[in-house]
Amino acid sequence: MSERSRRVSEPDRGGPGLLASVTGPEDVRNLDPDELPALAAEIRELLVAATARGGGHLGPNLGVVELTIAMHRVFDSPRDRIVWDTGHQAYVHKMLTGRAGDFTTLRQEGGLSGYPSQAESPHDVVENSHASTALSYADGLAKAYRLRGESDRTVVAVIGDGALTGGMAWEALNNIAGHAKDPDLPLVIVVNDNGRSYSPTIGGLASHLASLRMTQNYEHMLEFVKQNLGRVPVVGGPLYETLHGVKKGIKDVLAPQVMFEDLGLKYVGPIDGHDEPAVEAALRRARDFGGPVIVHVLTVKGSGYSPAENHDEDCFHSPGAFDPLTGEERPKPHGWTNVFGQELVRLGAERRDLVAITAAMLHPTGLAPFAAAYPDRVFDVGIAEQHALTSAAGLALGGLHPVVAVYATFLNRAFDQLLMDVALHRLPVTVVLDRAGVTGDDGASHNGMWDMSILQVVPGLSIAAPRDGARLRELLGEAVAVEDGPTVVRYPKGALGPDIEATGRLGGMDVLREGGPDADVLMVAAGPMAEQCLEAAALLDAHGISATVVDPRWVKPLDQALVTAARGRRLVAVVEDNGRVGGVGDAVARLLRDADVDVPVRTFGIPQRFLDHAKRPKILAEIGLTGQGLARQITEKIASGTAELADQPTA
Amino acid sequence: MSERSRRVSEPDRGGPGLLASVTGPEDVRNLDPDELPALAAEIRELLVAATARGGGHLGPNLGVVELTIAMHRVFDSPRDRIVWDTGHQAYVHKMLTGRAGDFTTLRQEGGLSGYPSQAESPHDVVENSHASTALSYADGLAKAYRLRGESDRTVVAVIGDGALTGGMAWEALNNIAGHAKDPDLPLVIVVNDNGRSYSPTIGGLASHLASLRMTQNYEHMLEFVKQNLGRVPVVGGPLYETLHGVKKGIKDVLAPQVMFEDLGLKYVGPIDGHDEPAVEAALRRARDFGGPVIVHVLTVKGSGYSPAENHDEDCFHSPGAFDPLTGEERPKPHGWTNVFGQELVRLGAERRDLVAITAAMLHPTGLAPFAAAYPDRVFDVGIAEQHALTSAAGLALGGLHPVVAVYATFLNRAFDQLLMDVALHRLPVTVVLDRAGVTGDDGASHNGMWDMSILQVVPGLSIAAPRDGARLRELLGEAVAVEDGPTVVRYPKGALGPDIEATGRLGGMDVLREGGPDADVLMVAAGPMAEQCLEAAALLDAHGISATVVDPRWVKPLDQALVTAARGRRLVAVVEDNGRVGGVGDAVARLLRDADVDVPVRTFGIPQRFLDHAKRPKILAEIGLTGQGLARQITEKIASGTAELADQPTA
Repeated sequence: MSERSRRVSEPDRGGPGLLASVTGPEDVRNLDPDELPALAAEIRELLVAATARGGGHLGPNLGVVELTIAMHRVFDSPRDRIVWDTGHQAYVHKMLTGRAGDFTTLRQEGGLSGYPSQAESPHDVVENSHASTALSYADGLAKAYRLRGESDRTVVAVIGDGALTGGMAWEALNNIAGHAKDPDLPLVIVVNDNGRSYSPTIGGLASHLASLRMTQNYEHMLEFVKQNLGRVPVVGGPLYETLHGVKKGIKDVLAPQVMFEDLGLKYVGPIDGHDEPAVEAALRRARDFGGPVIVHVLTVKGSGYSPAENHDEDCFHSPGAFDPLTGEERPKPHGWTNVFGQELVRLGAERRDLVAITAAMLHPTGLAPFAAAYPDRVFDVGIAEQHALTSAAGLALGGLHPVVAVYATFLNRAFDQLLMDVALHRLPVTVVLDRAGVTGDDGASHNGMWDMSILQVVPGLSIAAPRDGARLRELLGEAVAVEDGPTVVRYPKGALGPDIEATGRLGGMDVLREGGPDADVLMVAAGPMAEQCLEAAALLDAHGISATVVDPRWVKPLDQALVTAARGRRLVAVVEDNGRVGGVGDAVARLLRDADVDVPVRTFGIPQRFLDHAKRPKILAEIGLTGQGLARQITEKIASGTAELADQPTA
Repeated sequence: MSERSRRVSEPDRGGPGLLASVTGPEDVRNLDPDELPALAAEIRELLVAATARGGGHLGPNLGVVELTIAMHRVFDSPRDRIVWDTGHQAYVHKMLTGRAGDFTTLRQEGGLSGYPSQAESPHDVVENSHASTALSYADGLAKAYRLRGESDRTVVAVIGDGALTGGMAWEALNNIAGHAKDPDLPLVIVVNDNGRSYSPTIGGLASHLASLRMTQNYEHMLEFVKQNLGRVPVVGGPLYETLHGVKKGIKDVLAPQVMFEDLGLKYVGPIDGHDEPAVEAALRRARDFGGPVIVHVLTVKGSGYSPAENHDEDCFHSPGAFDPLTGEERPKPHGWTNVFGQELVRLGAERRDLVAITAAMLHPTGLAPFAAAYPDRVFDVGIAEQHALTSAAGLALGGLHPVVAVYATFLNRAFDQLLMDVALHRLPVTVVLDRAGVTGDDGASHNGMWDMSILQVVPGLSIAAPRDGARLRELLGEAVAVEDGPTVVRYPKGALGPDIEATGRLGGMDVLREGGPDADVLMVAAGPMAEQCLEAAALLDAHGISATVVDPRWVKPLDQALVTAARGRRLVAVVEDNGRVGGVGDAVARLLRDADVDVPVRTFGIPQRFLDHAKRPKILAEIGLTGQGLARQITEKIASGTAELADQPTA
């Protein structure tokens, strides 16, 4: 067992319950420096215990224990503002701001959120979990305080090395550097550099940061160099004036941190992020500087818990429930992601032009098997969804068929690129959306409830929503066979149910249940909602309402056979795991209106609001997307719908 | 008259019609170097003449004359691929690839597009005009050629200094640098640096590039320094080994181009972009290097035409028609942009918490008067829509009310930020969308036909669509008064018609024409479509069809009074200057369905496809969005709709 790992299993405590005595940052500041290692050990114990129970972002939080302690000792939150990029590394921050006692409820319905939450604490600022945003928030906050005459408030943004690969972070850095000389913009950017935010970070920035990491001792060497160089009249005239610059020049050779300095940003680092006094000292220096400063902190993901430190894939980035002693995770059920991953490998063997792209999520999106099979045909672009889509456009222009695998909610970052770079040029790019629909645990910004709405507007784009594993394989194959435009395949998070075989076919649609030529209701089941629709249809049948259930398979464009199927029904019920606004329900209704078929259509989907975290099945039940819920609502609609229809002019 | 300006008025020609003899790049390559200045002069003459007639991107194209000539002499397009970022600077490229004769039709319907067009020429690759994409396309293309064993094809991306401030460009640079050592990825990045792509470029990158520009002679000084420093045994041991690095270190002091080199990218420059032989030499060096190279070219926007060079605002970035001799533009009619700009100044006097944000378009979005009145309350963030929205979120968190002014089509870049950074936190940010709806001249990627669809899904967001100048002032005032969530105000490009006064009020809606309690048709006019709706209603009336016309003013959320107004009508016709899919029509239909009111609803909007360039009125007429067109379609729908309704079950 390593030195570090012992922090968890044999904490050298100052006394029991140190963490319990911390009710807020002022208590952290009042602790004796000698007590901090014990506090850190208690925090790690609680982190492991809380995430072992129901999963959570263990690795990232183990990495920021000392950093977070130091931050709360140096800065005066909430007057000073601490913005956590991505937000999943804020567990320690929660513990130090009076919420340690609530960790038994972590990520449970009504319990502690896995992300900062304004409702939980005034110390929490940003709730969105999408990466690379913190510097922009911080820039805005600092400018606001300057205008309001509150420049004594320091704004602190904590951002990972991975998130720096996102374009937004660059846009913000460029703006912050633009007022780097302004002492009224006290803004501390903490670069939390663990070299592998999700998976090993890739690209020019990663190499640059790596070279910085290798030079922790360069200051000593620099002193030696300066003493030698300083005595030599290297050059006369104007160049002599740049002696300070020569120092910088030599530093560049050893440690090229000037990328930030070229932009005009003050840089402090690199600092060992597990040396709390060192981090505290660096943060104090940065705070007292006044203007914008970058503090480069080196941390170890999973630090202090050996199963996480030694975890090859992602240092326990976000495990499910596990055994806290061994770190052994409960086996994950065979899910959508696996089916996609395996099928893509199979397709890749047939089609040498198939290539895959991920935005820093090779494992979570299921691309790892493809990468293992065809290492030169997979591209990890970093947390850079925009580049993912537009480089896919380039790959397609070059004659290949790229498959971009991404979580549904993160595609929102690349909407413009899908529309204007891919679709405008009618390029064969397939986007695979995992975690579409209600994801649940990770809260509002992780739910993939937007894609089937905003993607409806993209000309020439086709969208497939498989209902089961067999359809995922089938539709993925159809998607990569499309040559004259982009395709999307979207499916939810989690385990797969049994395959649902069709009883017949209607145009390109699968008929899952035949309600007869005089069926009262046509149910249109988008993707995995087929299961709930079949349950509902059976219940309706028991109440004397006959229902046909179809799965359109491709929800954009919709099959014209839907018009025929809908004509004469008392109700068309569209059921989708997507926001009610602008999704498949609206598309079906528009298709029918455009065909001058004015059958009553009702949409059963996710209410158009930000959902609180809870388990997916619980949320689906609450919003009525269960067999029972649907049957009840449809029965009611049939009644009210017919009453209303009687009011209508009919001739 | 300056030396440069004479190029246009007194070209030193090798002979008349040199440009006319150029049918493709091979002809450019075959020209004698002595003939190139004459060719450049002819090109400038044609550029001025063609844009004087009907407007166009004059300034940017005057700046790239020599650069484009050099590119077509060094690279073998279309086997080598030339990707123009933003695309509006490709006029010279069009002239050299056989299209000089077509410039009389520039930007006219059926004529030459103002952007690259795959349909026009195999030399054109990318049609999208949104900035900062070229490096991503190039990265994808180069990777595709490598996989296909075609690494002898060089991919060239031309990107402006302004576009480098966009996050996508950073994402791409990071990826390209990640394979900077790969000789099988011949990729030349031409940074076309004129220091003011739209307006003076802002931020850390701009300062960095400015420092590079000031050091065109640093190579000479460097030689001197090296000679002195090289002779001194500065330090022994490992540091001595870094003598090459010391050279780099000194270069940094003088010319900190290492930002690119830190990322691992080979850098050539800076080069005078109007010295054709120098540009040619640099491009040849870059091409022969093999792997990715940055060539930094300094150009003068408007070069060679003094009215453009001396134009304060934006060097004739994209003037309307003008007098080619004097450069005098026809006076622009008083338009939507002016009304917004003036009203914001007025509101800014009342509300000290109002601040404004632009993404490198201070003048085009009408923010210049606000900037003049309140210079410390306006932020130009560069071509960085993502940062614009999220820094606005930060400003709002800090207690201010930001107004983000942006072209409608460019908001697509910041959809995720508006959703997850602004709306999730219910922040009072007002987004003002200029050029919403059909813009026309600038082709598919400039039309603002997406916003009223994709923004429908954003919880808590309100959208106003003013129909005239009076309503723009009124609704802007209402928008900035909203404190618990974001608001959008959207209006089209161009001149303002006369104000249209309401005849009455229904809930929050304006009634523009009262068709009586038994009106056949309810017309819902979104924003500026009010004019066409009133014309249509008058025509319908003449045909015995009575119509009520309402303007909802706020198209999200819709007023519940619409339900009452719609009940009992034979048809609800929703008319919008937005894509038919997912817009106001769908929203009205959903509102009625959710209220169990199954009145036939029909949507009259922009067909959901990419529109070819033409004048806005022409396009509106072609897609049926005129008074006559609407009256005709509504008459037909009334007939077919009632026929169909007779088929429906009514009890």
